[in-house]
Parts: sequence; structure tokens; C-alpha cells
Amino acid sequence: MNARIGATSSFLDWMQHIQSGMETTLDTYLPPEIHMPARLHQAMRYTALDGGKRVRPLLVYAAGELFDAPEQLLARSAAAVEMIHVYSLVHDDMPCMDDDALRRGKPTVHVKYDEATALLVGDALQAQAFAVLAEIVDEQQAARQLKMVHLLAEAAGSAGMCGGQAIDLASVGMTLSLAELEQMHRLKTGALLRASILLGAYSGKLLSTAETAALEAYAGAIGLAFQVVDDILDATADSATLGKTAGKDAADNKPTYVSILGLSESQALAEKLRGDAHQALAQFGDKARRLHELADLIVQRKA
Amino acid sequence: MNARIGATSSFLDWMQHIQSGMETTLDTYLPPEIHMPARLHQAMRYTALDGGKRVRPLLVYAAGELFDAPEQLLARSAAAVEMIHVYSLVHDDMPCMDDDALRRGKPTVHVKYDEATALLVGDALQAQAFAVLAEIVDEQQAARQLKMVHLLAEAAGSAGMCGGQAIDLASVGMTLSLAELEQMHRLKTGALLRASILLGAYSGKLLSTAETAALEAYAGAIGLAFQVVDDILDATADSATLGKTAGKDAADNKPTYVSILGLSESQALAEKLRGDAHQALAQFGDKARRLHELADLIVQRKA
Repeated sequence: MNARIGATSSFLDWMQHIQSGMETTLDTYLPPEIHMPARLHQAMRYTALDGGKRVRPLLVYAAGELFDAPEQLLARSAAAVEMIHVYSLVHDDMPCMDDDALRRGKPTVHVKYDEATALLVGDALQAQAFAVLAEIVDEQQAARQLKMVHLLAEAAGSAGMCGGQAIDLASVGMTLSLAELEQMHRLKTGALLRASILLGAYSGKLLSTAETAALEAYAGAIGLAFQVVDDILDATADSATLGKTAGKDAADNKPTYVSILGLSESQALAEKLRGDAHQALAQFGDKARRLHELADLIVQRKA
Repeated sequence: MNARIGATSSFLDWMQHIQSGMETTLDTYLPPEIHMPARLHQAMRYTALDGGKRVRPLLVYAAGELFDAPEQLLARSAAAVEMIHVYSLVHDDMPCMDDDALRRGKPTVHVKYDEATALLVGDALQAQAFAVLAEIVDEQQAARQLKMVHLLAEAAGSAGMCGGQAIDLASVGMTLSLAELEQMHRLKTGALLRASILLGAYSGKLLSTAETAALEAYAGAIGLAFQVVDDILDATADSATLGKTAGKDAADNKPTYVSILGLSESQALAEKLRGDAHQALAQFGDKARRLHELADLIVQRKA
């Protein structure tokens, strides 16, 4: 990615700069299509290089601004966390999980290729995420980088994303309490969003207790907000806008914020969480500008 | 695991010491069953704690003896590489891949649980492997440990194990040349065996060029031998002895060493590779005793 865009630029410019930079970064860190096995590499690129919203990389870069983190470690963190996210979508879409044919407006990997390829694409993307994040950047800072790898691994595993996915599967058709629903999403989506923020920050330095507490509070608020808004959009937007099948949660009889709280209370909750996120950033002053703007984006997005 | 067993003990004693120690190590490094999500954790333990042969951990420990590697890093390396191996078996057994119902004499994970759980068990085991290997052991040696994480990630991904699996899938029903068959196995099985040996050695120190070359040669020979012997056993042993479905390669019309070279030439090749492996270890003298014995085990095993 090119040098960082100035702090005075608009949020939209900043966001587009990071997003287009991520395509280049991912292109660099994914295996070339011409390398054997070509079909696997093609499929990895088909699903990873599709100009998604790149919410997690945006969080990495926004948190990196707090501590003037160097570009190289930010790029590796952002690529790694996005590869974990993309692999999870590929596996979630498979017939034995959500069985979804459409993702970001394109046929899902098992539809475009086949199930075995989708399985391997996910497996290989997860491995590639760790290969990218564990490639040594600065010998003197290896302990910090190792801590970052450990953080990502915990966020991706059974105490994080995979664990949340398992709880989600077990909850289909069940009546969940609000607390149970929150616990599920704290793992399923929240863990990786939190990891994105901490990886961005750690790319700059190890954090003080107060800094960690503030970023944890921010991560908790936007993680929950992200899911509440997802549920609102699933209930109110159409498939063309979402780029995936809308109304699927209700059709699958999955518990959602909208099904438990209703639409208007869900919208009020999202607004409250946006306020909590902003408040958590107080100690960072102007340096947290992009994190503020991302909290707004997450709550106000339309897809 | 307890303190290392003496260099004077028999190979069988040494092997059983490592194998039983691995059960304890894996038990420690796997999430407890009582933690949420309990069913996922149960299934991870069901498949990982089954007293397998633990060939990869044996290689880690045997290579560690070359450089008097400390127990803690060896245990983490052995657990990580075994978790990667176990996850690959869980995914390989799924209906969209090899569709196998029996593994090590027990129902496979998707049969015992369900497909979605098998998918998540594999995903979570891969993440756990990296969490275990990236937990910092010695701040002063963080750069070396980071290098080890990177090595494992490369071995597990599309340039290693996943890549070999993809080539294997694409080769069903095709006539492969001996060179193509070797390339497939060099990735599918060889990459992780090589990583086991290098992780064990790196647990002691970073290697000189001559040391690396010797261990690469040893790894290449035993990796190939491992597969040749697998093919021989698939063609000659029964399912009860193997603990998995015998004769499956022929039934699936998969190219094997036996189908290309015939049985007696395959047996001669395995013997030749055993000699190559022994020869590669010359510079290490008595310290390489366990690596010598493991080459013998790999070629002479009956299951």
C-alpha cells in the first residue's frame, strides 16, 4: 500500500484508499494463480480479491493511527485478519453449514468450483493468514509480532470465531435469551473485530492497561453494533443491496436481535452502542478520528 | 511431558514414552470439554486424543535430540504439528473429500457428530495449532519461535499440505507419471513431515546450511518412503490392521506407487529410501540415533 493518506482527508477518501490498497496487499500475499495447484490458487483469489467492504482491515489501519504504527506490519495484520474472515465465509456458505449460493453478489466458492475445493480454499487461506502474519518484519520486535500471531489464533479458534459458529449452529430453531445471543455474537463476529483493532494497535506498540481497556470497550461496542445492524439489514434490505440472500435468518428460524427485540428497539440499541464506542475513545483525542468514523459507518451502513 | 528418557533406552521405550507424553501434552493444549461450546470441544478431543502413532511428534522429538532442544518448545512444536495433521484427517474424511467412515478404528468425526461439526473441528484445530506454537516461551528467542510459526504455516498451506491435497483430488482417475505422483506426495504428506523435523531442530537452535541440507535430505527420503509404504499397506493389509478402510485407493481409482511400479519394485524403493535417510544423517553421529530408528520404523511398519 502507498504511504498513509493525510489525517485531514475525508473519511470517504481515507476508506477508499485503504480498500483499494487492500486489493494490492492481498494480491501480493496470495499465492500466484500460475503456481501449482493453479485451480486452488485461482479459487483462493476468486473469493479473497473481490473488493469487499474490508471492515476488518479498516479497523486495523484506524487503530494503527493511534500509535503511528509502521505500514508493513499494518499491511500484514490487515491481510491476515481479512484472510481469516474470507476463509470463514467460504466454509460458512458450504452446504453442511448455511448452504448459501450467493456472497457479495457472486456465486459462492462451492457453487463456482466444488465443495472439496471450497473446503481446501478455506483451509489454505487460514494457513496463509498465519504465514503472512508470522513473516518476520523486525528482529528486535519479534516478541511483539509473536504476541500478535497468538492473538489472531485465539480469535480465530474455538474460543473465538469457530466457537461462535458452533454455538450459532446449535441455536437454530431454539429460543435464545438476549444474553445467549450476545455471547454467540461476541465470539462469532466480535472476536475477529476485536483482534483487528488490537492487531492495528500492537502494530505500533504494546499497550498500557488503560489503553487496552479503552480499546476492549470500543471493540465490544462496535462488535455488538455490527451484529445488531446485520440483523436489521437482513430483515429490511433486499438481496441485491446486500449482495447475499436477504431474509435468510428468519427463513432459517435463527434467533436475531430483530426477532427478540423488534425492529425499533434494535435500531435504538445500535445507536446506543455507537455512543458507547465513541465514549470509549476519549483518552486518545484526535488520533482516534478514524475509529470514531468507523463506528459511525458500522451503525449507518446500508449493506 | 516428563524429563527426556535416557539415550541408552530401547527405541520401543523411547517411542512409548513420547507417545504417552503426547496424550498428556495434547490434553493440556486442547480446550477443556466443560468450556463452551462443549460439543465442539468434545469433538476436537474425540479426534485428537486417540492414541495415534504420533509419527510427527516422534520426528519433532528425535530431531530435537540433535541439538538438545528444551522440552517446552518441543512439546509445543509436537502438539502444533499433530493438531495440523489431525485437522487434515478430519477434513479429508468428509463426504465432499474421501468420504471415509472409519479412522484409526473409530467412526470419523462427521459420522460420530455431523458434517458441520467436522468442518468446525478442523478449522478450530488448525487455529489451535498456531495458538499453541505462538505462545511465547522465551522472550530472547522470539525471532526463532516466529520463524517456526512461519515454517508450520507454509507447510500447512497451499504450498504444502493443502496444495498436495488439491493435486490429489484433481488426479483421481488420471494416469500420473512417477514424477507427478512424487510432487503430489511431497506436498500432501512430505511438507508436514519435513516441518516436524525442522521444528524439532529449530527448538534447539537455528541451523547451519550444512545442517539444513542434511535434514532436508533426510526429510525428503522418509517423506517419500512414508507414502510408498502407505501405498503398499493399502494394497496388502486388511482394514482391521490399518484401522481404516483398506484397498480404498484402488477402489477410488487413485494412482499409487503400487499401481505404477508394482509391489516388489515399490518395496525395493522403500528400502532404498531408508538407506538414503540413514546416509543423510552421517554428520550428526550418535545424536541422530532416534532419527535413524524412525526411518526404520516408517519403512518396516505394518499399519
